[in-house]
Amino acid sequence: MNAPENKQQFRLVGTRPVRPDGVEKVTGKAIYSPDFVAPGMLQGAVLRSPHPHAHIRGIDTKKAEALAGVKAVVTGQDFPQAADKLVAGAESASNLRWVAQKCMAIGKVYYEGQAVAAVAATSQAIAEAALKLIEVDYEVLPHVIAIEDALAQDAPVLHDDVFTQGLAEKPAKPSNASMRFAIERGDAKAAIAGAAASFTGRFTLQPVHQGYIEPHACVAQWQADGQAQIWCSSQGHFAIRAMTAGILQIGIADIRVHPLEIGGGFGGKTTVYLEPVAMLLSKKAGRPVRLTMKRTDIFRSTGPAPGAVIDITLAAAADGTLLGTEIEFKYHGGAFPGANEVYSGVGGAVGHYRVPNASIVGWNVLSNIPTMHAYRAPGAPQINFAVESAMDELAAQLGIDPIDLRLKNIVHPGEPSASGVPLGAIGYAEALEAAKAHPHWSAPVEAGQGRGVACGFWGNYGGPSTASVKLGEDGSVLVTEGSPDIGGSRASMAIMAAETLGVAYEKVRVTIADTSSIGFSMVTGGSRTTFATGKAVIQATEGVIEQLKDRAARTWGVDVAAVTWEDGAAVHGDQRLTLAQIAAKTSTTGGPISAEAVVDPHDFLPGFGVHICDTAVDRETGHVLVKRYTVVQDVGRAIHADYVEGQMQGGAVQGIGWALNEAYVYDRSGKLDNAGFLDYRMPVASDMPMIDTVMVEVPNPAHPYGVKGVGEVPIVPPLAAVGNAVSRATGIRMQDLPISPDRVYGLLRAAE
Amino acid sequence: MNAPENKQQFRLVGTRPVRPDGVEKVTGKAIYSPDFVAPGMLQGAVLRSPHPHAHIRGIDTKKAEALAGVKAVVTGQDFPQAADKLVAGAESASNLRWVAQKCMAIGKVYYEGQAVAAVAATSQAIAEAALKLIEVDYEVLPHVIAIEDALAQDAPVLHDDVFTQGLAEKPAKPSNASMRFAIERGDAKAAIAGAAASFTGRFTLQPVHQGYIEPHACVAQWQADGQAQIWCSSQGHFAIRAMTAGILQIGIADIRVHPLEIGGGFGGKTTVYLEPVAMLLSKKAGRPVRLTMKRTDIFRSTGPAPGAVIDITLAAAADGTLLGTEIEFKYHGGAFPGANEVYSGVGGAVGHYRVPNASIVGWNVLSNIPTMHAYRAPGAPQINFAVESAMDELAAQLGIDPIDLRLKNIVHPGEPSASGVPLGAIGYAEALEAAKAHPHWSAPVEAGQGRGVACGFWGNYGGPSTASVKLGEDGSVLVTEGSPDIGGSRASMAIMAAETLGVAYEKVRVTIADTSSIGFSMVTGGSRTTFATGKAVIQATEGVIEQLKDRAARTWGVDVAAVTWEDGAAVHGDQRLTLAQIAAKTSTTGGPISAEAVVDPHDFLPGFGVHICDTAVDRETGHVLVKRYTVVQDVGRAIHADYVEGQMQGGAVQGIGWALNEAYVYDRSGKLDNAGFLDYRMPVASDMPMIDTVMVEVPNPAHPYGVKGVGEVPIVPPLAAVGNAVSRATGIRMQDLPISPDRVYGLLRAAE
Repeated sequence: MNAPENKQQFRLVGTRPVRPDGVEKVTGKAIYSPDFVAPGMLQGAVLRSPHPHAHIRGIDTKKAEALAGVKAVVTGQDFPQAADKLVAGAESASNLRWVAQKCMAIGKVYYEGQAVAAVAATSQAIAEAALKLIEVDYEVLPHVIAIEDALAQDAPVLHDDVFTQGLAEKPAKPSNASMRFAIERGDAKAAIAGAAASFTGRFTLQPVHQGYIEPHACVAQWQADGQAQIWCSSQGHFAIRAMTAGILQIGIADIRVHPLEIGGGFGGKTTVYLEPVAMLLSKKAGRPVRLTMKRTDIFRSTGPAPGAVIDITLAAAADGTLLGTEIEFKYHGGAFPGANEVYSGVGGAVGHYRVPNASIVGWNVLSNIPTMHAYRAPGAPQINFAVESAMDELAAQLGIDPIDLRLKNIVHPGEPSASGVPLGAIGYAEALEAAKAHPHWSAPVEAGQGRGVACGFWGNYGGPSTASVKLGEDGSVLVTEGSPDIGGSRASMAIMAAETLGVAYEKVRVTIADTSSIGFSMVTGGSRTTFATGKAVIQATEGVIEQLKDRAARTWGVDVAAVTWEDGAAVHGDQRLTLAQIAAKTSTTGGPISAEAVVDPHDFLPGFGVHICDTAVDRETGHVLVKRYTVVQDVGRAIHADYVEGQMQGGAVQGIGWALNEAYVYDRSGKLDNAGFLDYRMPVASDMPMIDTVMVEVPNPAHPYGVKGVGEVPIVPPLAAVGNAVSRATGIRMQDLPISPDRVYGLLRAAE
Repeated sequence: MNAPENKQQFRLVGTRPVRPDGVEKVTGKAIYSPDFVAPGMLQGAVLRSPHPHAHIRGIDTKKAEALAGVKAVVTGQDFPQAADKLVAGAESASNLRWVAQKCMAIGKVYYEGQAVAAVAATSQAIAEAALKLIEVDYEVLPHVIAIEDALAQDAPVLHDDVFTQGLAEKPAKPSNASMRFAIERGDAKAAIAGAAASFTGRFTLQPVHQGYIEPHACVAQWQADGQAQIWCSSQGHFAIRAMTAGILQIGIADIRVHPLEIGGGFGGKTTVYLEPVAMLLSKKAGRPVRLTMKRTDIFRSTGPAPGAVIDITLAAAADGTLLGTEIEFKYHGGAFPGANEVYSGVGGAVGHYRVPNASIVGWNVLSNIPTMHAYRAPGAPQINFAVESAMDELAAQLGIDPIDLRLKNIVHPGEPSASGVPLGAIGYAEALEAAKAHPHWSAPVEAGQGRGVACGFWGNYGGPSTASVKLGEDGSVLVTEGSPDIGGSRASMAIMAAETLGVAYEKVRVTIADTSSIGFSMVTGGSRTTFATGKAVIQATEGVIEQLKDRAARTWGVDVAAVTWEDGAAVHGDQRLTLAQIAAKTSTTGGPISAEAVVDPHDFLPGFGVHICDTAVDRETGHVLVKRYTVVQDVGRAIHADYVEGQMQGGAVQGIGWALNEAYVYDRSGKLDNAGFLDYRMPVASDMPMIDTVMVEVPNPAHPYGVKGVGEVPIVPPLAAVGNAVSRATGIRMQDLPISPDRVYGLLRAAE
């Protein structure tokens, strides 16, 4: 749904032109990481641990090295002594000591699938044959997988130098609980005790993977003179550069990272797993080396989203006014400290409501599974599932319409956000009103079905981006930026540049340049790209317009202050020079026209969404089918309407998958039992109804076109929206994900 | 020889650090055009005309298209109707109509080796087999090769729509003389008639090739959506972009040209031959296509330097003062109009001397050979050979030391240049004095040898360049520019950036970015890169320093005007923050630091050189051996001393080859007889003595480090320096190049 005011106000913003990278992608010709080839390239393979927890007594690589065609073998011993420091320019709090061990075990393995050695050879077959010749002497240790097990008194403790952070005093003993973070305000216990209605329950979730289709892969070339090139897809090639340089202890400027097309990231491609390994192989071999993960490797050794155990009490007055909450949750941290999900879990829990009394405590708990990593609104969907399920219970207890219950309690512009800063021009109320007015909400619930609603939000982000805009001699426009295009950002940038310049969308071409060709740009993540990189593009475009006006003024011999820029042309009285006319003359008017902008905005705004879900439950089999689904979201203003709607639909689908089917399943030996798309059940098109979208446009006044981040919000509400729908269909509160047929079947039989 | 003042004044300018691209190049790992591979790439081959002049009645490609493995065939009919227009952003006066036909014949072939069709196939063998299946129906026409033959009344006229330009009236008939350009001042005839001494003679030269070792090659990928990428080596990827877009009539921004390493260009790689053909093949095939020239293709179908016929009279007073000159020269233009050499031949002839009376007329003459193209100081060495030979004759006639004769007549700062503009801070007198003071000049001439001296100059150029400078989070420095590195410019740019910033040379890494990633930069040619792109790099570096000072000022809470930048650090009283310290904190002080600069300088200065040459002549065989050679040149100021000296030596060697051995030799059927390095005799190391160099440093005040262009000057004097040496050794004036053994043998026998 395109907001009608767009059509008056803007020529291109809010429209739906074909994306510049579309044809190559749909015809299978775009170059993703596994497609790239470098002259003289070797093929690599990685040996991974069969044990979830073990000391490495030794690794004998002699036989592998002797195999004909093998050009290099590396192990953890080839890594520089890991620096215990944070990486500037990468994801926050990326401690190199832990990031290095996600690339390769150094002395000890912490999870099944952790890399222990790697080979580069003249063919993939030889590299894999060589892996079988590597002899690793393991001393197998007891392991632990589940959160509660990892907190048990007798649990094996993964690290003898990790002590719980965030406690009043440093604890005496190392612990698998690597972090505690809490918010306390008012008197939650007293408020709950005096409330007319309350709900208390425990909710559990399992780790789920981002499930990007493109595997991790890279080609690295580390030259004899110390300079290097890496070709890979990621959400941020500057982060790949920073982490690879940090782990290998070489200069930032010595690595040039070229971005390839990315086939999905969802937060999971903001870190390194293969690049430092490929670099070391390349250095030893003296040739470029390609490493590609198999799907089983991706599941076993890259970071999923945390599973969780959440205890919640939520209480309200008789009129529905929320009075207090007590929440204690534990998130799966995986093998190494560093995951940030606990922060957003605590801040995001009831950040969308006025809750005067709250005690919210979060824990990060380590165990012998891969280190958790960002997944779309990291840390928010888990806690939101508990909170929005509890809201549904309160609505039912008090007999209040679930949307009305939310409307009564939501935060408004000017009120303090979760972090205490007053909220800006958010469109939460508008989104709820739009949901209430939507035909889906008023349609009768079909027999045997249930309807759930849930709200969620995400804070979004801004941060550093660089862009430059230059004119071709024929008046075409080149936009250069450093943000990988995941969700159609080339199209958004072209729209914003073309709108600002007053030229046709097709005249603008956008390039994602490598780390040596454009200035620093933070990862495409945090729903920041259209907002922050967009600001850089608009600012650089405005710099170009200033130059265009200056050239026209000099051509006419008038003061530049008297020249305006209108509809793609400099104007002074009756005189008019189009962009193309000025561009054709630059060689005689002062040289090429180009402008660069570096931005670091922090005036982003959070986004809010309301999801409505109808489910049918097959009482014979426990199978849940989503029959109808509507996503309502305040998007600020859509630049490219299709890709905003696409984000809303895609986030909803991922959340539905999380709700209904997805989960990491470990066997008793600590091995992942479902490390493949046949056993790890992601939703496919035939599982889904058409997902309706409603873009509510409450513009962000800090962005020239009103942009708010849209990519992460839509994965937050679906877990509870689905859970609430199934709960209402079955009369049984769904507290454990996934709501898979076997679980529903069990609950139905138990209730009978 | 390093000028001693450098050591005081600068930390890095004038030193000789290892070049950043050195290790990869000397170990054979650098990626040149023929090395690059694109995923799914096809191999292409080009069919070339066996006739020097013919109409194409038709081309039957059906059998070739039917061959298994053939994916595309193109002919001239696939080219858009050629636009008769100049290309902005490319070399000057590149008329697309002619450039297109240098890529592929359209209806008519004008020289042996002109492309008539091309094939893309799954292997090189299949592509070449397919060429044999293409049937071209030629109507062979009479042809003409030599300049004088092309001007004969009954000569075949190549183009029925080319009329001599530069005449007072448009001529009635088309002509092979495509252009006349002249300078007239004073009364040359009268001045010569009254002179004490004069020399009159005719000098001839044959076309010679630049002889770059790396062949022309490219990979092109023209996508279904109209966007394209080209990977090639060239002297200017922006020129490749402009010409390819112009010929194919697509948008500038739709083509992204990636520069690969270049193995020599010398002016010859500023145009397209293969790129538009590879683009058309790629479009038809739907895959990337590589085209690579064989050496025979390079000789037969790319532009050599013009051959010439030069008639000169030069006259002087008894004290050696030059009184007047009459010069009429004809340069080989090749098949198509457009070569600019006539302009520089006229302007450069006696531009280094005060000659009050001068009549200088130049002609461009078309014939059935490849279109001439720029070769290092294009058009200057030919005319200089005649002028400096005549100077030598006058010196002998008047009994004046040849250096003294020049010193008496040279132009000085403040006097008008050839174009009438007053000369700036040139160092011509200083170079001549340095030559006179050099041990070579005072050493006795060995028995049987002769010593020649010659002077020459080149105007140099400035023009548009873009550069950006950014800081890595670790304080490393990234310089991005758009000028291909041919002679070590990465090193020069790193030196200038490091000198300006006050950091170590090794901290700076320089990237030559593609056309979509950095702003427009003119070709690496005209000896402009260290000067103009250097200015852009310095200006961008200064922009970074301003930001560094600002960050320091804000950190200290002081006015930025009170902060200075000294030795790589911001300084305010006792406070000091190094670049690395500031870079590490950018994420909390306002974001990344980056600055871009676009320059278009025209305050370049010409360079002057004096060459001294001793030759031994084997009177039995006619073989000439260069025994000692010294190059003295005003270089402004050397940034990287090795690469300035390397330019001086390399230019001298190319000039010596031109003087002694190199020439295009055509047989009677109009076919090039020596289209390979076995028959086209370029000098090799064993032919040469160590060439001594003297860098005279008279800085250019318009450049922060005093840079003048140095690359082209040194090819100008060697033809006459060698000719004068051989003339003095034999007593016979050498008026025809090359001074090859057979020619010298004939002259010696005739003189006996």
